[in-house]
Amino acid sequence: MSKIMMGPQTLIYPMPTVLVGANVNGKPNFMTVAWCGIANGEPPMTSIAIRHSRYTIRGIRQNLTFSVNIPSTNMVRETDYCGLITGSEVNKVDVCRFKVFYGKLGSAPLIEQCPINLECKVMHMLDLGSHSLVIGRIEESHVSESCLTDGKPDVNKIQPFTYIRAPAEQYQALGEVIAKAFSIGKELKAR
Amino acid sequence: MSKIMMGPQTLIYPMPTVLVGANVNGKPNFMTVAWCGIANGEPPMTSIAIRHSRYTIRGIRQNLTFSVNIPSTNMVRETDYCGLITGSEVNKVDVCRFKVFYGKLGSAPLIEQCPINLECKVMHMLDLGSHSLVIGRIEESHVSESCLTDGKPDVNKIQPFTYIRAPAEQYQALGEVIAKAFSIGKELKAR
Repeated sequence: MSKIMMGPQTLIYPMPTVLVGANVNGKPNFMTVAWCGIANGEPPMTSIAIRHSRYTIRGIRQNLTFSVNIPSTNMVRETDYCGLITGSEVNKVDVCRFKVFYGKLGSAPLIEQCPINLECKVMHMLDLGSHSLVIGRIEESHVSESCLTDGKPDVNKIQPFTYIRAPAEQYQALGEVIAKAFSIGKELKAR
Repeated sequence: MSKIMMGPQTLIYPMPTVLVGANVNGKPNFMTVAWCGIANGEPPMTSIAIRHSRYTIRGIRQNLTFSVNIPSTNMVRETDYCGLITGSEVNKVDVCRFKVFYGKLGSAPLIEQCPINLECKVMHMLDLGSHSLVIGRIEESHVSESCLTDGKPDVNKIQPFTYIRAPAEQYQALGEVIAKAFSIGKELKAR
């Protein structure tokens, strides 16, 4: 198999598509983020990379809290919109008709229409170059009751989606289950 | 829509499934990681969360380099295997029949069968609790020639997959394209 060197690039697939929320000057605002990961297990933490110039990061600095909201495929229009425009110019909550609520932290705005909402407290902010890596401790999770099966979050009901950059910039749903985890590998163990 | 509070949980969907490589005591080893994200744009950086006790992290500390390899769906058995067993007990490269090569850094082992290989240099290691968050600068990207379309990495050829925890621990392929990014949101802008 021949390989082509393409220089330093962030070629990691697939990335999630989430809406990050913060109160900026006291008003809820949301931005679309694909560069969102899980940073720690106990205690649970997330990391999000945000360009320094973004409006939302002002709110994160003001309150030291933020939210991660997982949209469903039926929210792809609103999700894309929140990545197209800045909250300094429009009230995205109004345009997208988001129903905003607050939880335990009081200052991290949450979107009711998103099946999963995480309230986060800032632990670290690392200036890595073009972006700040914001590491937040997840203080509370809110899950839509309609997305639970036997009391557990069910990905088939949540219907999250991914952001893909090439061959075209697009959002893709999840596809077929290809294998059970912590299971199919045992076939190799035996050989 | 009624919400259930579920306490602090890492409910971020979907997560990628990648193979992280390092030379441990001079020998290549790979572990499966879902908690892998993009941490910065310019320069390109990745972050991976690794439990302190993992064998692979020893190699990352020894060389201050590591690799991120994106497996295709046809490698799901090997990928799962690398998350089931520790490199302190078996030679995973032999069991999985990985063809290992090295690039620019010389000490970050890369898997030829994976369509994408990123060579990374450690910038930061943050002890966040159960895990270390390893932030690496991507120094070079290698892409299998067969996975390019018009000279660009093509997700339809790369065929990456996601790791899902609930309702069952499973790997899922990518599904249908639901919308063009930086485009469908414009419909809202106009309204």
